[in-house]
Amino acid sequence: MSSTIWSVDEHLEDILATVKPLEPIELQLPDAQGCVLVEDVMVRIALPPFDNSSMDGYAVRTSDVAGASEEFPAVLTVVGDVAAGSGRTLMVGPGEAARIMTGAPLPPGAEAVVPVEWTDGGTGGGPAATMRAASGAPEGASGEVRVHRPAEARAHVRARGSDVQAGDLALEAGTVLGPPQIGLLAAIGRATVKVRPRPRVVVLSTGSELVQPGLELATGQIYDSNSFALTAAARDAGAIAYRVGAVTDDAETLRATIEDQLIRADMIVTTGGVSVGAYDVVKEALSSVGDEDEPGSGIDFRKLAMQPGKPQGFGSIGPEHTPLLALPGNPVSSYVSFELFVRPAIRALMGLKDVHRPKIRAALSAGEPLSSPAGKRQFLRGTYDEESGTVTPVGGAGSHLIAALARANALITVPEDVTEVEPATEVDVVLLG
Amino acid sequence: MSSTIWSVDEHLEDILATVKPLEPIELQLPDAQGCVLVEDVMVRIALPPFDNSSMDGYAVRTSDVAGASEEFPAVLTVVGDVAAGSGRTLMVGPGEAARIMTGAPLPPGAEAVVPVEWTDGGTGGGPAATMRAASGAPEGASGEVRVHRPAEARAHVRARGSDVQAGDLALEAGTVLGPPQIGLLAAIGRATVKVRPRPRVVVLSTGSELVQPGLELATGQIYDSNSFALTAAARDAGAIAYRVGAVTDDAETLRATIEDQLIRADMIVTTGGVSVGAYDVVKEALSSVGDEDEPGSGIDFRKLAMQPGKPQGFGSIGPEHTPLLALPGNPVSSYVSFELFVRPAIRALMGLKDVHRPKIRAALSAGEPLSSPAGKRQFLRGTYDEESGTVTPVGGAGSHLIAALARANALITVPEDVTEVEPATEVDVVLLG
Repeated sequence: MSSTIWSVDEHLEDILATVKPLEPIELQLPDAQGCVLVEDVMVRIALPPFDNSSMDGYAVRTSDVAGASEEFPAVLTVVGDVAAGSGRTLMVGPGEAARIMTGAPLPPGAEAVVPVEWTDGGTGGGPAATMRAASGAPEGASGEVRVHRPAEARAHVRARGSDVQAGDLALEAGTVLGPPQIGLLAAIGRATVKVRPRPRVVVLSTGSELVQPGLELATGQIYDSNSFALTAAARDAGAIAYRVGAVTDDAETLRATIEDQLIRADMIVTTGGVSVGAYDVVKEALSSVGDEDEPGSGIDFRKLAMQPGKPQGFGSIGPEHTPLLALPGNPVSSYVSFELFVRPAIRALMGLKDVHRPKIRAALSAGEPLSSPAGKRQFLRGTYDEESGTVTPVGGAGSHLIAALARANALITVPEDVTEVEPATEVDVVLLG
Repeated sequence: MSSTIWSVDEHLEDILATVKPLEPIELQLPDAQGCVLVEDVMVRIALPPFDNSSMDGYAVRTSDVAGASEEFPAVLTVVGDVAAGSGRTLMVGPGEAARIMTGAPLPPGAEAVVPVEWTDGGTGGGPAATMRAASGAPEGASGEVRVHRPAEARAHVRARGSDVQAGDLALEAGTVLGPPQIGLLAAIGRATVKVRPRPRVVVLSTGSELVQPGLELATGQIYDSNSFALTAAARDAGAIAYRVGAVTDDAETLRATIEDQLIRADMIVTTGGVSVGAYDVVKEALSSVGDEDEPGSGIDFRKLAMQPGKPQGFGSIGPEHTPLLALPGNPVSSYVSFELFVRPAIRALMGLKDVHRPKIRAALSAGEPLSSPAGKRQFLRGTYDEESGTVTPVGGAGSHLIAALARANALITVPEDVTEVEPATEVDVVLLG
């Protein structure tokens, strides 16, 4: 236990200076969703890879349809179909047209595409609204077509490489892979990409009083809620989260449980047992874990100048120096601590540049002044209303008010040197979820 | 194929009028994350369930510590430990104190808790900073303690029911279950809750030209990107998404594939094959699927007054009337269509009230006026800059510009009756991701 009091910022800085982004791995595209790319991805083939039609219609030579009108149509011989992906090569000579589908390659000889709506669709009647299905009317790929309008060279043709050229930078290292980026990677033929994986975060709560929800409570017992809330929050932050059931207040059991979990953990989060009590087993079990031969190893337990969340532990553990954050056990304290310290750590493990929740300023909506302890940064639960730009405290300052937390969408921050906040004053607000 | 042109709003209204929220099921808490609660959840036990200590310290009778100071401490006999969850009952009589841990029940006879820092911690020395661990110093639970400050009745005691009372409404139907709500449900002992499940969405792309990324392209072939992008987008919207590989342009194969997938689908999304071409198999395969004996069944193919994304199909299919959205095949068209129509449909299946992306107004940042076709609502890809409140178009209007889409974070909406937008004009913007 350090005897000095740490500020919120000092503790967070220590965590972010220690937690390094995970080593990159090559992942299949669907598994890379939400991850940070660590390579500059270059385009190997032009997109589109060939000149192709942007419409369903007829591939023609422009001179053949010059001056065409509905009254005086250009009558062309249909030499066949060019369907997307058919791979057939068809030559369009003078006086000829090929029926062509959207995305199909422009056949040699043809210079433009006239949409089917500019023709009679090969029916010999008026302007066509649609092509007849090839399966039901195979004769559409032969015979004659009447074209009612001229077309300029390259009309309705998407040029090879008009989207990207071979050698272009498709996505740069650092890009977060959302659906459109996954789509681009697939479009240029990438099946796998090198990214930082999602961190595997093990969450365990400690306390002999904790009972699994759904069971009956005996005297002095309460339900374990922290492991559920923080596992959900870790998943929300981008982690693959594992919930370990509540561990009893016994230092050896806790140490053994944590050692067992190290194999699947990129980070470990505990709740409870970090204060000054005689049964604060997290502190007891982990204070002695540091190996003198391994600099930087071991868990440091601290008092922070914040409310809620004063007692906190942070360090690394095990042969891989797995980061471990030991949070206080009160449900509101642990959730606020998670938001302030664990979420940024998870996002730092992912290699994200922006690890913090959005912060805004809002006017305090309250019937009376808020009081806040001197020398501590206070985090009050609040509801932020975007329309009015105001934030209203919900519930009290008590760290056990989990029902109020469930109605909050923001944390109101009162700085260390402020002991009273008047209604209508502008305050700092962290937006949750 | 309807011959009338549908507006974007009419098509969306038709979808949202048809797609009903999924039937609720009882899920384990961790599986209910992100889902909509369909029951009013009442509190069955008070939280906290018993008066308990908010500090590590000593449970005392207030009269015993009245007037206590460091110079003239109250000397009390320690009758034992009250650890959290121990279940032991201990009586605190006059002149006695029980060592008590945070969260442990206030023992009968005691009226307040004095923090360990207000005592000598049983050491006989000066003020204590911490308790000695019970495991290493069991004698701390007996002997004497010197208390240096008086305590008011109920000091450092969290009253039974001060968070919630039995019979209170914990969460109301319609609440979306985020981490704090999951925490509250666990805290009141709920192991399962009744929610609308995440919809299972099957995504398949069609086109004989489509090749799986990672393989080699032959002449006229391109990589399948839609099934990857839209599966990722469906997952992003809250669905459990299944990607089916690209299906060749054959109506029977497509029909058989879709029939096979119905068993695991709450919704089906296809791309490609919905236009006016002779090989538009989605239209060919599904136009005839409607059963005359089953009103409301069948897929309707439409032209929409929008760019990109003019051809669209929507309806229901199979014995369960599974909703099916048939999107156009161009990557940008399909992605924009997904955002406009599929995402709201997924969120409607989940029972969410707010199914739409946030919309804002932003000033157009562009070197020259934007042109837009008359009578069509145009959706241009753009980058929105929050600081300046401006949006800049990226790439052109071409629906194949997937590289530009991957750099966009917004859709710029140009209304049907606007054909030109001057720079610096305010435009409607849909924020993506």
